[in-house]
Order: sequence, then C-alpha cells, then structure tokens
Amino acid sequence: MDLATLLGIIGAIGIVAMAMILGGDPVIFVNIPSLLIVIGGSLFVVLSKYSLGQFLGAVKVAAKAFAFKLESTEEIIGVLVDVAQVARKGGLLALEDKEVDNKYLKNGMQLLVDGQDREVVRTMLSKDRAMTLERHKWGAKVFTSIGDVGPAMGMIGTLIGLVQMLSNMDDPKSIGPAMAVALLTTLYGAMLATMIAIPIADKLTLRMTEEAQIQSIIIDALLAIQSGQNPRVIEDMLRTYLPAGVRDDATFEQPAQE
Amino acid sequence: MDLATLLGIIGAIGIVAMAMILGGDPVIFVNIPSLLIVIGGSLFVVLSKYSLGQFLGAVKVAAKAFAFKLESTEEIIGVLVDVAQVARKGGLLALEDKEVDNKYLKNGMQLLVDGQDREVVRTMLSKDRAMTLERHKWGAKVFTSIGDVGPAMGMIGTLIGLVQMLSNMDDPKSIGPAMAVALLTTLYGAMLATMIAIPIADKLTLRMTEEAQIQSIIIDALLAIQSGQNPRVIEDMLRTYLPAGVRDDATFEQPAQE
Amino acid sequence: MDLATLLGIIGAIGIVAMAMILGGDPVIFVNIPSLLIVIGGSLFVVLSKYSLGQFLGAVKVAAKAFAFKLESTEEIIGVLVDVAQVARKGGLLALEDKEVDNKYLKNGMQLLVDGQDREVVRTMLSKDRAMTLERHKWGAKVFTSIGDVGPAMGMIGTLIGLVQMLSNMDDPKSIGPAMAVALLTTLYGAMLATMIAIPIADKLTLRMTEEAQIQSIIIDALLAIQSGQNPRVIEDMLRTYLPAGVRDDATFEQPAQE
Amino acid sequence: MDLATLLGIIGAIGIVAMAMILGGDPVIFVNIPSLLIVIGGSLFVVLSKYSLGQFLGAVKVAAKAFAFKLESTEEIIGVLVDVAQVARKGGLLALEDKEVDNKYLKNGMQLLVDGQDREVVRTMLSKDRAMTLERHKWGAKVFTSIGDVGPAMGMIGTLIGLVQMLSNMDDPKSIGPAMAVALLTTLYGAMLATMIAIPIADKLTLRMTEEAQIQSIIIDALLAIQSGQNPRVIEDMLRTYLPAGVRDDATFEQPAQE
Amino acid sequence: MDLATLLGIIGAIGIVAMAMILGGDPVIFVNIPSLLIVIGGSLFVVLSKYSLGQFLGAVKVAAKAFAFKLESTEEIIGVLVDVAQVARKGGLLALEDKEVDNKYLKNGMQLLVDGQDREVVRTMLSKDRAMTLERHKWGAKVFTSIGDVGPAMGMIGTLIGLVQMLSNMDDPKSIGPAMAVALLTTLYGAMLATMIAIPIADKLTLRMTEEAQIQSIIIDALLAIQSGQNPRVIEDMLRTYLPAGVRDDATFEQPAQE
Repeated sequence: MDLATLLGIIGAIGIVAMAMILGGDPVIFVNIPSLLIVIGGSLFVVLSKYSLGQFLGAVKVAAKAFAFKLESTEEIIGVLVDVAQVARKGGLLALEDKEVDNKYLKNGMQLLVDGQDREVVRTMLSKDRAMTLERHKWGAKVFTSIGDVGPAMGMIGTLIGLVQMLSNMDDPKSIGPAMAVALLTTLYGAMLATMIAIPIADKLTLRMTEEAQIQSIIIDALLAIQSGQNPRVIEDMLRTYLPAGVRDDATFEQPAQE
Repeated sequence: MDLATLLGIIGAIGIVAMAMILGGDPVIFVNIPSLLIVIGGSLFVVLSKYSLGQFLGAVKVAAKAFAFKLESTEEIIGVLVDVAQVARKGGLLALEDKEVDNKYLKNGMQLLVDGQDREVVRTMLSKDRAMTLERHKWGAKVFTSIGDVGPAMGMIGTLIGLVQMLSNMDDPKSIGPAMAVALLTTLYGAMLATMIAIPIADKLTLRMTEEAQIQSIIIDALLAIQSGQNPRVIEDMLRTYLPAGVRDDATFEQPAQE
Repeated sequence: MDLATLLGIIGAIGIVAMAMILGGDPVIFVNIPSLLIVIGGSLFVVLSKYSLGQFLGAVKVAAKAFAFKLESTEEIIGVLVDVAQVARKGGLLALEDKEVDNKYLKNGMQLLVDGQDREVVRTMLSKDRAMTLERHKWGAKVFTSIGDVGPAMGMIGTLIGLVQMLSNMDDPKSIGPAMAVALLTTLYGAMLATMIAIPIADKLTLRMTEEAQIQSIIIDALLAIQSGQNPRVIEDMLRTYLPAGVRDDATFEQPAQE
Repeated sequence: MDLATLLGIIGAIGIVAMAMILGGDPVIFVNIPSLLIVIGGSLFVVLSKYSLGQFLGAVKVAAKAFAFKLESTEEIIGVLVDVAQVARKGGLLALEDKEVDNKYLKNGMQLLVDGQDREVVRTMLSKDRAMTLERHKWGAKVFTSIGDVGPAMGMIGTLIGLVQMLSNMDDPKSIGPAMAVALLTTLYGAMLATMIAIPIADKLTLRMTEEAQIQSIIIDALLAIQSGQNPRVIEDMLRTYLPAGVRDDATFEQPAQE
Repeated sequence: MDLATLLGIIGAIGIVAMAMILGGDPVIFVNIPSLLIVIGGSLFVVLSKYSLGQFLGAVKVAAKAFAFKLESTEEIIGVLVDVAQVARKGGLLALEDKEVDNKYLKNGMQLLVDGQDREVVRTMLSKDRAMTLERHKWGAKVFTSIGDVGPAMGMIGTLIGLVQMLSNMDDPKSIGPAMAVALLTTLYGAMLATMIAIPIADKLTLRMTEEAQIQSIIIDALLAIQSGQNPRVIEDMLRTYLPAGVRDDATFEQPAQE
C-alpha cells in the first residue's frame, strides 16, 4: 500500500470535509445532478479521448500502483545478491526453486533456467520493461486528462446553473441558494482535479521512473549472474545504484569482499 | 465506428442536456445569435489560420477516423500471416487475388505483384505512411485551433451581451434574463472546446500513432514476404509488436513452430 | 490574395458586427479612448519589444503575404519542368529570356546564366531561403506579441474604467453605462487578439513552411538543370514532393517517359 | 545564511503585513480553518504526489540551502590553489591533515590520500555530484508543487465559503464579513505560492546550478593535483571559470607565474 | 539610446495616463500603500529568487542596453574593413593606434597587437562572448520574474483591500471608493508587467542575439586579419552576414574588387 499517497489524499479530503462541517449543515455541499455533470461528464469526455481499453487499463494501473508497494532499491539489491549466491552454488538451474516476490525478476530467472541466450534475455527483459513504462505512461495520461477536463466540466455546470438562475429571478430569496448550487460544480471540478486526478497522475509518473530503475537493476544483475560472476562483484556493481549516503554506510565490509 | 469516442461525446452531451432539462425550461439554453457567434465565428477564425484545403481536409480526416474502426494489432498480424502463407504457396503473383480490407496493405501487395524492387517498395510505403501522418497531424491541429478559439469567441460574445445589457438598464426585470443570454456564448464556447473539439483533436493524435504503428508492421511484413521468408518466422517477428501479456498467451504453439 | 484568411477574418468580424447591430444601437460599442488604449497601447508596447525596423518589417511581410498568393506545389513543378525543357533545348544561356513570375526562381536562373559554380548556386540560394524564413519568423513573432499584449491592455483599460466608476457613484443611473464602457477595452483586446493578430501570426508561420518547401523544390530543380539532367527525370524527382493521391493521377504517362 | 532570499521573503511579507495593519484591524486576516485548508491541504496534496522520504528530503534540502552559504567561485579557487600547494610540497598524503570546509572537497581529498585510481576518483566524484543535483532537483520539484497546489486549495476554500454564505443569506449584515472570510483562503494560497513556495523552488534550482559548477571545478582541480601539476598551472586553468572582468583584475601577476 | 523601446514604453504610458486624466481626477489612481505592495513587494520577491549580485547586475545590464545603441551590422562591417586596411598597410602592430568605439573589438585588436596565438585569440574572444550572453540572459530572467510576480502581488493587494472592505461595510457610500482602491494594485501589477518588465525582458533577449551576432562577425574578421587576408576578401566574407536586399545594393563594385 502506497502510504504517502493514501495518507495525502485522505488527509486533504478530511481537511476539506472538516471545513464543510464546521461551517454549518454539510448537506448543502451534496447535489446529485452537479456530481453527475462533473464526475459523469468528465469520465465520458476522457473516454472519448481514448479507447475503452486504454481507459480501463489506466484504472487498473492506478489500482495496482496503490495496492502493491514498490520494493526499495536496497531491498531489491538484497534479493538479487541472494539470487546470485543461489546461482553460484547450485548453477542457473537452481534458480527454478528460488522463491521471489517480484514478478519481473521471476520471469527473468525463468529465462536463465530455460538456458536462453544472453541477447534473448536482454531483449525480452528490455521489451517488457518498455511495455511497463508504456502502460504507466498511458495511466498517467488518462488521469492528467481527468485533471484537465474536471474543472472545465465544473465551469460548464456552473454556467448552466447561472443561466437557469438568471432566467428566473422572481423570488429574490431563492437567488442565494440557487447560486450556491451553481457554484458546487466548480467546487467539485476543482476538488476532482487538485486533490485526486492530478496527484494520481503525478504519482504514476513518479512510480514509472522508480519501477523502470528497479527493472534496470534486475536486468544488469541477471546478465551478470548468467555470465557466472562472483556475487560480491555483483553486489559492488549494484551498490553504485544507491545514493552516496546509504552507499557509505555499507562500505565497511567492502575491503574484505574483494 | 469508433465506439469509445462516440459513446464518450454522446454521453457527455447527454448528461449536460439532462441537467438543462431537469433545471426547468431547456429552451432558455437555445439562442441563435449566440450559437452563430460561437460556432460561426470560431469556424471563420480557424479558417483564417489555414487554407481552405487544410480546413476541409481536417473535417474529412475526422469523419474517416470515426466512420472506420482501426484494426487491432492482433487482427492485422493475423491478416499478414495469412498473406504470407498465400505468397509462400502461390508465389508473389498469387497476392493479386488475395482480398484484404486494409487499403494500405492492398497498395503494398500490388507493389509486390508488380515485381518492384525492395528499395522501391520500402520507399513508396514509407512515403505514404509519412503522408498519412501528415494528414492526421493537420486534422488534429485544426481541431485544436477550434478548441482554442471557441472559448475566446464565447468570451467575446458574453462581453457584447454584457455591454448591451449594461447600456440599457431601465427595466430591472430584464437584467437577469439579459445576463443569462450573455452567459450562453461562454457556455457554448466551453462546451464546443471541452466536449467536442479537444476530444476529437486528442483522438486524431492517438489514432495517428496507432495507424503509423500498424503501417510499420505492414511494411516489415511485406518486406519479409518479398524476401521469401517462412510464414512462421514472420509470425514470430510480428508477435514482438504485441504487449507481453497477449504475447504469452500465444507462446504455447511457438516451440513447435521453429 | 489569400482567400481563406481574408474570408475568415471578414466573416468572423461580420458575425460579431451582426450581433452588435441585432442587440440594439451599435454605437454603444464605439469608444475612441478605449480604442486608443487597446490599439495604440498595444502597438506602442510591441514596438518597445522590437526595433522600429523589425516592427515595420512585420507589417510589410504580412501585407505581402496577403497580397500575393503562393503558387501551389503543382504549379511550381509545372514551371520548373518548363524551365528544364528550355535549358535542355537552348542551353543554360537560353534561360536569360525565359519569363517566370517567381522572383526567387528568377534569381536562381540568373545564377545559372552567369555560369556560377554549383556550390555557389547552392550556397546563395540556401542563404536567401534562410533569410526569407527569418523575415517570416519575425513577422509571426511581432503579430504573436500583439496577440499577447492586446488582451493585457484591454484588462488595463477596464481596470481604469472600473476605478473611475467606483470612485464616483453618486448617480446610480450612470453605473451601468460606465461599466459598459469599462468592459469595451476588454472586448477590443479579445477581438484584436483572437480575430486578427493570432490568425495572422499563425498564417505567417504556415506560409513560412510552405514558402520554404517551394524554395527547396526550386533549389533541387535548378541544381538538376545545371547538371544537364533530362527534363523527364527532373519531373519524376519533383513529383515525389506531391501527396500520394495527386502523384498517382499523373502516373499514367510515367512509363512512357523513361 | 543566504541573505538575498531571507531578506526578500521577509521584506515581501513585511510589506504585505504593513498593508494589513494600515487598513485597520489586522485580526480580520487571521482565520484558523482557512489556514488549515490552504497550508494543511496543500501539504497533504503534495505529500500524495511524492513519497514521504522525498517530501521530507525536500524540506531538508531547503533548510540546508538557507543555513549554509555557498562559497563563491573565487573562494573555492583560492582554497583549491592552497590544496594544490600543500600536495606539491608534502605529496598527496599531506592532504590528510589539510583542513577544508567544503565536504565534497574533503571527500575528494580523502580519495587522493587513499591512493585511488584516477578513473575511480573521477567516477565517484561525478556520481556524488549527480546525486547532489538529483536531491536539489527533487527539492525544487516539491516546492514547485506547493506553488501549484496552494492557489488551487485557496480557490477550493473560497468556493466552500461562498456556498456556505449563499445558502444562508437571512442576515444581510453578515454577508460582507462571510465573503471576507471566504476570500481569505484565496489570499493565503496566493501568498503561499508567490511569496514563499515559488521563490524557494527557483532559489533551489539556481543553487543547484551553482553547486554543480563548484563541484565541477573541484573535480578538475583534484584530478590535476593527483597528476602532480604545478599549482600555478592549476590556478591558470581554474581562472578560466571566472567572468572576464574578475579574471582581468588578477592578470597582473600572471606573466611572472609562467 | 534605444529609440524604439523608449518611444514604446513612453508612448504606452502616455496613452494610459491620458485615459486616466480624461476620465476625471487622475489623483484617484495614486495610492502609496498600493504602490508599495506592488513595486516593493515584487522587487523583494524577485530578490529572494536570485542573489543580490544577480539582481543588481540585471539592472545594470538593462541600463547599459538602453544607454548605448548597438551598431548595425552594416556599421560594424564598415569599421572592420577599415581595421583590415590599416593592418594590411601597417602590419598588426599598426592596430595599436587605430581608434574604435566597440570595446569588444578593441580588446580583440589588442590581442593581435600582443602577437597572441590564433587559438588563444579565438578562445578568449569566444569566452568573452559567452560571458556577455550569460549576463544578458540573467538580465532578461530577472525582468521576466518581475513580469511574473507583479500581477501576482497585484492580486494579493486587491484581495487584502477586498477583505478589509467586506469586513467593514457600515457605510454604503464608502464601498465604491474602497473597492476602487482595492483594484488599484491589480492595475499597477498589470501595468508593471505588460508595459515595463516584459518589454524590457524581451528587448534584452533580442539584444542578446544581436550582440552575439556582431561579436561573431568581429571574431571572424579578426582571425582573417591576423592571417593576413586581403581587405576585399574580408569584405566579401562579411557581406554574407547582410540580408539579401542590402547585399545586392553593394554588388556593383564587387567585380572590380577581385
């Protein structure tokens, strides 16, 4: 579970909800037709910009991104050194029984077990990495589109409400509440974009970069394992992916390694 | 028929129309001079940015994009493997009688039947692909321009209405309705841009990418067919264009193929 | 005369004028000080961003672009094939008496008549082409600046009007008309940008691309003529500049040509 | 202490505070729920776009950037010439006891003392430089996000206030103050973005460039020191990093140096 | 004195001032606290984005740009041909006594007099050219920042005024004038950005390009003079920097020159 994003979105919505409740009756902020215009309208417009498959794929990518936490670079390096040691002791075939959580790594290990050629391993892993990147990119694009369209639909809803209110001003008492309702779609659109859609799009873009880097590390490590390199050499090589501070913490055992 | 786009645009307009009807008399949202300013004005302004040919070409490109569904990558690969098998059995001349829907592929097959040189085939197909891209790019540009100009014309119309209303405020009762009419052009401009022009522009851009990829696949396949390669080898090569998940589903028969 | 741009600008202004007239007395839309602020102010501000030469040059470039229609690619190819035949029959010196409308081509033919070296011809024509591009680019930049500054000056004018109105609200009857006048500058600024300056800037950019392509064709053709190539070979070469559809229409005579 | 930024931010806030105090009771500008929506809401939304580590890292980077002043190019060149002279006299091992403030330089000198290979020195210093750049880039990104989200949350808060006010207009006297409170969130959002978040983001970007240049100078100097070059030659080389004016001031002693 | 910019800025301010005077008492447009918020606040915020040195440097660069007119390309070519003839007759040492206004050229000539190596001349002149570019770029950046921050500070000032006015609406008569004052900061911010800061930034960017081109011409010419080329050959070479029209005017004497 990606804690920061969940905490951030819930926290922001919580603060806004609190402001709505503190100011009196929060029911005035709920209006079903306004919700329909902003949420339904935005989804339909965004659907019209993509194919149904891309649209649903974006939701799936986002759901996965929140359901599964990405390993940290340190964790994946630890796992890879482990894998390297197993291969060192038992040969590449021993990888068949080694359990790992990361699916991409699992697929890569299977390629080694199958005795695939070095070039085939590199090509297939790179292609799958490109596909993951592509899927995340589309996911981010769809949510960016929601962030663009939401406020526009909110403004359209407010204009509709204003036109209706202005065309019918017999009862001065009803002007205030009618205008309040008209403003709700702008509020919904701004909340949808600022607090939900754009953060998800930004997060998917960020995660895309991180996942791509982890998959780069995996490719490097698997190719080194396949060519039979010493696990310690592999560890040294992977350590260069870590930031300087973290890398230094681990330097103490290095002299003994080489 | 491109379902997602049609469904999306109709759905969004439907929701907005529903909101107009639920709020009372929907006739208040129809104003012919306002429509003229926004739609007529936007079209004239966009026309002034391009030549008449480009302007009409954009409409034609958009119409075609909605009338004809693009084959999926899987479908076109199936067709190409089929074509490869025909060529394998009957020679390149047998392609003369093979029926295919895709016009671009049809043209390419004719080049093979004509016994054109490999370089000629590649050059002519690449040039036609560049032309298709160009036409779609212009189409997307024209609709993007409509999406830019629409809201600006809407604001111009609203300002005209406001100036007329403010210059003549003898009857306080007429202020509300006059302002409602003034706001209509802003509403029309926002709807034209958000719900129609920008989605079409985005869709054409997306389709441009997809069509270019399908034409790349066709070029690859035709050159392989011309050089007499085995249909199974061609199938394996084309399969790399598919996303990993779909590709895996088809892996079971692969070992037997080579 | 570039019909699309002229028609577009006149049509858009016509529609807006119609809306002004239909709504009552169109005189309320004319206010000399407001016009001065928006048009005079915008021109002064844009002048301050460039030198006087660039400013006047932009106007000249735009005027030329509207006064002279660009030849279509087909037309210029026809002319070039003609020139190639004259040179074939009478030698390069025969080009001295061949009349052509295109000034750039005229200059290039003179270089051939003068017996200039191939490299000199290419360099001088390329340099002149770069200069034409540069002049159009500056023209487009100046009009883009007008499109940026116009609405800003409009807002400044409206703020001035509002401050004057708000400081002096003794007569409630005058508030409406005063505010109408204040809004006029915003209206003028939006019209200047949306309906005149930005379309001209976009058109100059588009024309720049087209003129550069035609001059590329001319350079290619003149170099081929200078090296004594067959007019039919030159025609085939130039034909590749045409879009696929048009190119096909002309294919029937091709077999006989070579 | 980075004086310009501190002075700038305090000065701008001071001027705004003065305007608030001069205009009457400054307490009307304080509203805790509004502050919560803008500051709390913006922080939560920005948190949701990054991981907790990146978010806190950005604050740490900004704090460091303000707490420590960067050496000027002149200062660091002076220090490096000093270091070069120490190494010239006492050999690379003498660097062990040389005190320098710059941590990056300190690390680099330790590499020379350790007798690391030229390529290792270059690689490790370049990698650390890339990491510093990366950290600053993330810092700038987080503050840019705050600058984007702040005004959006301000608008959301204002819309909430307006809806509450419009739904409950029984007491005409309360309308003014209620609207004042509603506008406060927009004011807070604009101040947060314009006067704090965006300046910090811009400053971090600027500092990133400066720190990267200083580290480039250090890398050049250390590699020259390692290869045993004359301190005067090193000084001449480093002097080219200075702007022309400053460089000229120091030219008088140069003839004697070589 | 750069006439276009001065004329443009004064003209635009003059038109706006005229509109203020024609509309009644121009004193209503002067409000010291509002001026402080916009001008003082903007300068402080921009200061916080740069260092004090960069901030003052920008002002100096702008002042210089307005005080000194740049030579036209024609003028500098004339001067350079003159210099070439002096060097031709009296040798490079004769350049010591040749008076020229352009400082950059003066520096370059001194390098020739000093008998510096060709590579040294090229390197030092290129470095100084890069420095000039850098200084102008920073100048343009600072003024662009003022153009960004000015309107934002204007909006902050208006919000402060509105909150004060709305919190205290006992006297209906004071509402209009209070709102007028509140709007003044928005007006000041828009004028500062549109009519002063952005034009200066654009002008500095333009001048940067022009000065860089003139310095390129000077480098080319000095290197040719150093290598002892004929002044007429140098003139021909420099002439290619002129636009085609101007170049042609001077072609008549060319045949005789070579």
